[in-house]
Amino acid sequence: MTSLAVTQGIKLAVKNDDQPATRVKVGDLVVGGETVIVMAGPCTVETDEQLMETAREVKEAGAHILRGGAFKPRTLPYSFQGLGEEGLKLLSRARDETGLPIVTEVMSPEDVELVEAYTDILQIGTRNMQNFPLLKRVGRASKPVLLKRGMSATIYEWLGCAEYILSEGNPDVILCERGIRSFNDVTRNTLDISAVPIIKQVSRLPIIVDPSHGTGIRSLVAPMTKAGVAAGADGALVEVHCDPDHALCDGAQSLRPWEFRALMGELEPLARAVGKRLS
Amino acid sequence: MTSLAVTQGIKLAVKNDDQPATRVKVGDLVVGGETVIVMAGPCTVETDEQLMETAREVKEAGAHILRGGAFKPRTLPYSFQGLGEEGLKLLSRARDETGLPIVTEVMSPEDVELVEAYTDILQIGTRNMQNFPLLKRVGRASKPVLLKRGMSATIYEWLGCAEYILSEGNPDVILCERGIRSFNDVTRNTLDISAVPIIKQVSRLPIIVDPSHGTGIRSLVAPMTKAGVAAGADGALVEVHCDPDHALCDGAQSLRPWEFRALMGELEPLARAVGKRLS
Amino acid sequence: MTSLAVTQGIKLAVKNDDQPATRVKVGDLVVGGETVIVMAGPCTVETDEQLMETAREVKEAGAHILRGGAFKPRTLPYSFQGLGEEGLKLLSRARDETGLPIVTEVMSPEDVELVEAYTDILQIGTRNMQNFPLLKRVGRASKPVLLKRGMSATIYEWLGCAEYILSEGNPDVILCERGIRSFNDVTRNTLDISAVPIIKQVSRLPIIVDPSHGTGIRSLVAPMTKAGVAAGADGALVEVHCDPDHALCDGAQSLRPWEFRALMGELEPLARAVGKRLS
Amino acid sequence: MTSLAVTQGIKLAVKNDDQPATRVKVGDLVVGGETVIVMAGPCTVETDEQLMETAREVKEAGAHILRGGAFKPRTLPYSFQGLGEEGLKLLSRARDETGLPIVTEVMSPEDVELVEAYTDILQIGTRNMQNFPLLKRVGRASKPVLLKRGMSATIYEWLGCAEYILSEGNPDVILCERGIRSFNDVTRNTLDISAVPIIKQVSRLPIIVDPSHGTGIRSLVAPMTKAGVAAGADGALVEVHCDPDHALCDGAQSLRPWEFRALMGELEPLARAVGKRLS
Repeated sequence: MTSLAVTQGIKLAVKNDDQPATRVKVGDLVVGGETVIVMAGPCTVETDEQLMETAREVKEAGAHILRGGAFKPRTLPYSFQGLGEEGLKLLSRARDETGLPIVTEVMSPEDVELVEAYTDILQIGTRNMQNFPLLKRVGRASKPVLLKRGMSATIYEWLGCAEYILSEGNPDVILCERGIRSFNDVTRNTLDISAVPIIKQVSRLPIIVDPSHGTGIRSLVAPMTKAGVAAGADGALVEVHCDPDHALCDGAQSLRPWEFRALMGELEPLARAVGKRLS
Repeated sequence: MTSLAVTQGIKLAVKNDDQPATRVKVGDLVVGGETVIVMAGPCTVETDEQLMETAREVKEAGAHILRGGAFKPRTLPYSFQGLGEEGLKLLSRARDETGLPIVTEVMSPEDVELVEAYTDILQIGTRNMQNFPLLKRVGRASKPVLLKRGMSATIYEWLGCAEYILSEGNPDVILCERGIRSFNDVTRNTLDISAVPIIKQVSRLPIIVDPSHGTGIRSLVAPMTKAGVAAGADGALVEVHCDPDHALCDGAQSLRPWEFRALMGELEPLARAVGKRLS
Repeated sequence: MTSLAVTQGIKLAVKNDDQPATRVKVGDLVVGGETVIVMAGPCTVETDEQLMETAREVKEAGAHILRGGAFKPRTLPYSFQGLGEEGLKLLSRARDETGLPIVTEVMSPEDVELVEAYTDILQIGTRNMQNFPLLKRVGRASKPVLLKRGMSATIYEWLGCAEYILSEGNPDVILCERGIRSFNDVTRNTLDISAVPIIKQVSRLPIIVDPSHGTGIRSLVAPMTKAGVAAGADGALVEVHCDPDHALCDGAQSLRPWEFRALMGELEPLARAVGKRLS
Repeated sequence: MTSLAVTQGIKLAVKNDDQPATRVKVGDLVVGGETVIVMAGPCTVETDEQLMETAREVKEAGAHILRGGAFKPRTLPYSFQGLGEEGLKLLSRARDETGLPIVTEVMSPEDVELVEAYTDILQIGTRNMQNFPLLKRVGRASKPVLLKRGMSATIYEWLGCAEYILSEGNPDVILCERGIRSFNDVTRNTLDISAVPIIKQVSRLPIIVDPSHGTGIRSLVAPMTKAGVAAGADGALVEVHCDPDHALCDGAQSLRPWEFRALMGELEPLARAVGKRLS
């Protein structure tokens, strides 16, 4: 497993005896420690009500961090592209109200300063994993970075991207496995759970799973979250929407609040079974 | 999740309200019940000593069923093709000594009668998933069939193959996810854990995972077994070898006996965390 | 390109200086020579009229060999499985009438003797590429074998299967690239044209392409046939049906007779442009 | 082939009866017309001598456009990242000397103005296919855009990216198929030749192939270029290096000048065989 092909030339993202595993601090939370960190919320920030209701629900259910998109990468230019700064302000209000730190995506180097002013974690999406100018820019930011795996990236390429961020001086990178492209035609992507133990064995960085994009199907989110945690993931990124049937984006893979509560209940004993805890 | 594309035309392998989930009986064991069933043993039956020692070890560690190949599908005709009937006899002796039922592969319709005489479960390998004459033949056998997923088979194609067996009269089919082909270059295959909850949601049949072929890397076997069980798998098929460094086949993915014991110890609380048990 | 990984352990299927490239004789035809050989006909033999009409059409258009399935591997057991021996008899009649040699699939070792009695080329389908007992059996047959690539087979695995046939004594193997599984969702498979020059560079065996299964879409068959020939293929296997809208199988990818004639007309100058000829 | 899934919501990149196919003018050249346009040159601009020598060679061999990278997306931050503006100046000098227009990559919105000042065609690389801020920016540029397909992009996603550029007002988009990720382990990527006729059938935009990145292997470049042209491609992007053994990047897939001349000689009759010409 310490195959050279995986880490050749990688200096900062690799596991080594001299330096401890990276523990990313987000407020009072630690990603990469004994607690399984759950980031939950809507795919997209749509309205004040939608966000606040969903934020309260996930907070109550035990989520640690609130997710929500203000800048949205969409396949077509004609689709809703997110609320932009208005969305960031709503996220900020939701944090004030619930106390949950925020994670949201940034898509362009020139937006980093703006997004950084509002968010607690900067998310790099799967389409931008190898957007090197963007990686370098968030490498100079003062907030942790959640780096999603490219949809057909090898482990080596992914670690190379983490290296771009780390080598610019930002030590706080959280990796996120979000599903890869395969021939499978039932799921939207194939969540590559094996990436979790591989990263744990070769890298210092924490890793979480995104079972929502990883499957695209609501009924698979809970079992795949559990699979990720059992395999050693430090957390999960889960889409929850107060009214998924009317979501502007990704409704089919968003959990309803009661489904998310049920999942949190099931995660608790599972986390303990692998020597961790949920809260 | 009850997408028509997955089960269109599938009559017997589908889940429905009229009929209970299939519970496959193997001696006193039930695959598809509350117990997580672990099948363990060497990739290939090599010698009497190798098999007996490995069999005793896995029995002691808590395995429920002994696996071992007598007829081996190999990429080249010049590679060791297995001991054939001699291997079956050794497996039979190992069962007598340990009390563990046996699962072993059959590759040809004309060998079914022979293999059936020795084994408790007939295994159809990934390369033969769509060998329809073979499927029809084991569909007329009196032993349960372990049907591995083809290495690039869709869920629909896989269920179609189960249907070939069921429609010939054999109701006892156990599905086994063993990894799919993807662009990933670290692992031998990509173990598609999402197949577990998909099958659980659309099919009556039990499903287990094969983390050994699914990863090809020893250090990934334990975490991926746990991922499979957390996702709802009814068991696992794990390669264990008393001396993997000298194995004739698949040594790099075989657990050493002490590693297998450690895995069994870790599986116990995990099984309980998902409402099952290991023994 | 003489990468060891591709041919390691392959003895008979490799290109070497001591032995000339394999030229497979089928009656007066040579596959692997200066003529681009076109095998055309329906996916499945359905009726006497359907086969005879299609056979006459493809003969007139310049096809060299008639294809047609009598034993059909189908995803579900409830689908039409082919006419069996009756289909073989019809193929034989079509040969008598048109003078075209026949290629048809055999799915089971026990059927080889029967199919061999009727056909000129034994086809091994993609699902059976690694059905090793079947490969060994056709390796002892007296007719050439058309070996389709498995739908997720590496070049190495494919050559390994050719080796199974060659090592049993049958020197006449024709490889057929028929499309691989990928994430592409427009085409049925992804026709891997690069397999053609790879095989030409590492192997002695002739190779043809199957643009019909390789794309699954009628309008792509002609351009992909031309791509294959331009890349160096020794021929093509093309589905043609006299009435594709009412075909029992694969109608959407079958050319109508006039489309096939047009393709043959376009192939002629293309074959000459790469130093070959069509007739 | 006019499957809704491929073009749903695509307005400007689709083929329709009202508007002719897009012909992109680059100086006196037309991409998308009767001439097969060959863009050739080194992966990376390294030195004045390397570029000038290679430029003269490809010009003499009949290439139409000079390619060369000044800004290089590299897997690791420690690899040579290109000469930047210095590289653009060298490219400009090579154009002055040979008369060949230039195509070079731009990786960041903020670099577009700079690169545009030097180049004739702006290249968007595979890693940036869905870098939407970059796409929008080049959509406001005054030079044509060469849009490479993402390494695991569907046809629909690719057309969606073209749409981002077109909808900002730039009508001149050239698509470039450069190979997709698959399980294949011989080639660097799998050049999806079927993308060529699909694009021709559903889109107005011209399409070329990149057999160098598409295979990663020098000996496959010529046959795959020919395959692309036979399938209907409007041109090819070919890596040529005056001394590939000492190239800083991609030497193994770069043609030597004499190999490129041979390829141009073989392309000539092939282009004519499909109703086009090379010069």
